[in-house]
Amino acid sequence: MRIVAALGGNALLERGETPDAAIQRRHVRRAARALVPLAANHELLICHGNGPQIGILAVESEADETLSQPFPLDALGAQTQGLIGYWLSQELRNAGVARPIATILTQTLVDAGDPAFDNPTKFIGPVYKSHHHAERLAREFGWTVAQDGRYWRRVVPSPQPLGLIELPTIRLLLQARVVTVCTGGGGVPVTENESGELSGAEAVVDKDLAAARLACDLRADALLLLTDVPAVMRDFGSTVASPIKCIDTAELKKMSFPAGSMGPKVEACVRFVETTGGTAAIGALGDATALLDGTAGTLVLPDPARAERPRQTVGIR
Amino acid sequence: MRIVAALGGNALLERGETPDAAIQRRHVRRAARALVPLAANHELLICHGNGPQIGILAVESEADETLSQPFPLDALGAQTQGLIGYWLSQELRNAGVARPIATILTQTLVDAGDPAFDNPTKFIGPVYKSHHHAERLAREFGWTVAQDGRYWRRVVPSPQPLGLIELPTIRLLLQARVVTVCTGGGGVPVTENESGELSGAEAVVDKDLAAARLACDLRADALLLLTDVPAVMRDFGSTVASPIKCIDTAELKKMSFPAGSMGPKVEACVRFVETTGGTAAIGALGDATALLDGTAGTLVLPDPARAERPRQTVGIR
Repeated sequence: MRIVAALGGNALLERGETPDAAIQRRHVRRAARALVPLAANHELLICHGNGPQIGILAVESEADETLSQPFPLDALGAQTQGLIGYWLSQELRNAGVARPIATILTQTLVDAGDPAFDNPTKFIGPVYKSHHHAERLAREFGWTVAQDGRYWRRVVPSPQPLGLIELPTIRLLLQARVVTVCTGGGGVPVTENESGELSGAEAVVDKDLAAARLACDLRADALLLLTDVPAVMRDFGSTVASPIKCIDTAELKKMSFPAGSMGPKVEACVRFVETTGGTAAIGALGDATALLDGTAGTLVLPDPARAERPRQTVGIR
Repeated sequence: MRIVAALGGNALLERGETPDAAIQRRHVRRAARALVPLAANHELLICHGNGPQIGILAVESEADETLSQPFPLDALGAQTQGLIGYWLSQELRNAGVARPIATILTQTLVDAGDPAFDNPTKFIGPVYKSHHHAERLAREFGWTVAQDGRYWRRVVPSPQPLGLIELPTIRLLLQARVVTVCTGGGGVPVTENESGELSGAEAVVDKDLAAARLACDLRADALLLLTDVPAVMRDFGSTVASPIKCIDTAELKKMSFPAGSMGPKVEACVRFVETTGGTAAIGALGDATALLDGTAGTLVLPDPARAERPRQTVGIR
């Protein structure tokens, strides 16, 4: 099988944790161990988030007095791809993956006119306990901040991923059975002008939606969204909350989920399953192989009413 | 022809320049344009330095009060590979390279017992005008500092590159005619323990020596070291200084060069030419294609006394 697995940025750094390299690497090691069986038995692509990491680099860049302008998000996103890709590559090998492993820097095409640019929703960086503190930073650095649970946090635009610039190379690696880390942090968002020239965008693409784009374009058999909860919950937050074991896209689309967390995961699953007829799953990182068997997490299946629809061929324009 | 081209970190940021992303990108654009003819007509691998960039990130990480430990050099080096690889990939495409372009995160194997770990020589980061200032930083952060021309600068260990972990994947990309950016900043230095596990080393590998390692292991036809001087000079610094147009390795090895700058370039050329029988050249970035023709820069050729020696097959163990 061809599998795209997406790791949450929070799976590499828990909320409120000190973002030391040693601590993040410990999480990466745990993630790598969970992925070993998938790497041994399948064609495996690994995507990862970068919300905490890119936000930390942004704060460091803002504070760097040798710069006349802090680094833009495209440059910082590329740095997080190098960082997390390195940790993943090394820890996958150390965990016993025998096949070649490669991290490939990925650019994700977005539309300069995407309405997301006027409506920042993607949380990045550290959480701030005080609204006052967050507002002061927002004024100082020109950020937008928004409430994230009990805390406050910077938000940036998160445009839709239209395609991956490095797709042909990623396909080549996959065909050669290279375990490929790509589309890190959703890929560096880039826009294309009329002459076909690319330039970086001040945004962060959602990594689950980018992973779904990748999984669609490569006609993957499965999309696994690995996070810190065991399953999608029905009636989440109520006394009758219960995990969903299996659901079809038609039923899933009738439910509503929080925009900042489960919302994009559900949307990514729906897009992948409806486009390809493949299966998607959401669940805990440690259950990665069980997700694939359907013995843990939430399995998202095609709408039976549409099941006879042939697989579409999709790809970057 | 199969060509390995190495760009100096200083070619991306001149000494004393404000290290803004926009300024570095302008240099990268110039470098990309100079490489277009090579990418069109040859199999091309591009390596790059990261001395200024990794030093800047180290200073930012030292100043980040949310960390209990600043990031180690392996993690920072991986960040610079993502950053510069992204800029190069995008600007090569924008400059008109039609073939796929890929940046691959590279780890370089070094020996944990390399004497370089006890003798830091590689300059990184910004220059400090005052010895007092540099010494104060050294005490505060546990750095070693050394004189770099008129200025002072941080120095870190620079062990010998023994092999590239991602070599099989780089070879695969090259065979598929992908223009490949790799071994950035000399690659992230890693050591291997008795169980075969890798871990990052607190060091920066010289990018010219790493490029030579890559060129040897891939049996490249040419190694081009692109820098900010037009050629290697005979009697450098004297009134009779003159550019060397062509020299064989036997003669080159009799000369002496500054350890921090031309020294490793000359050593890289000698290693490549003696190992493979190929040709190497040192010269200005803007003369990249002329270097290959021998109409600019310094061409390094095999020692005629050893010219009949067959090409060796070399590779990572």
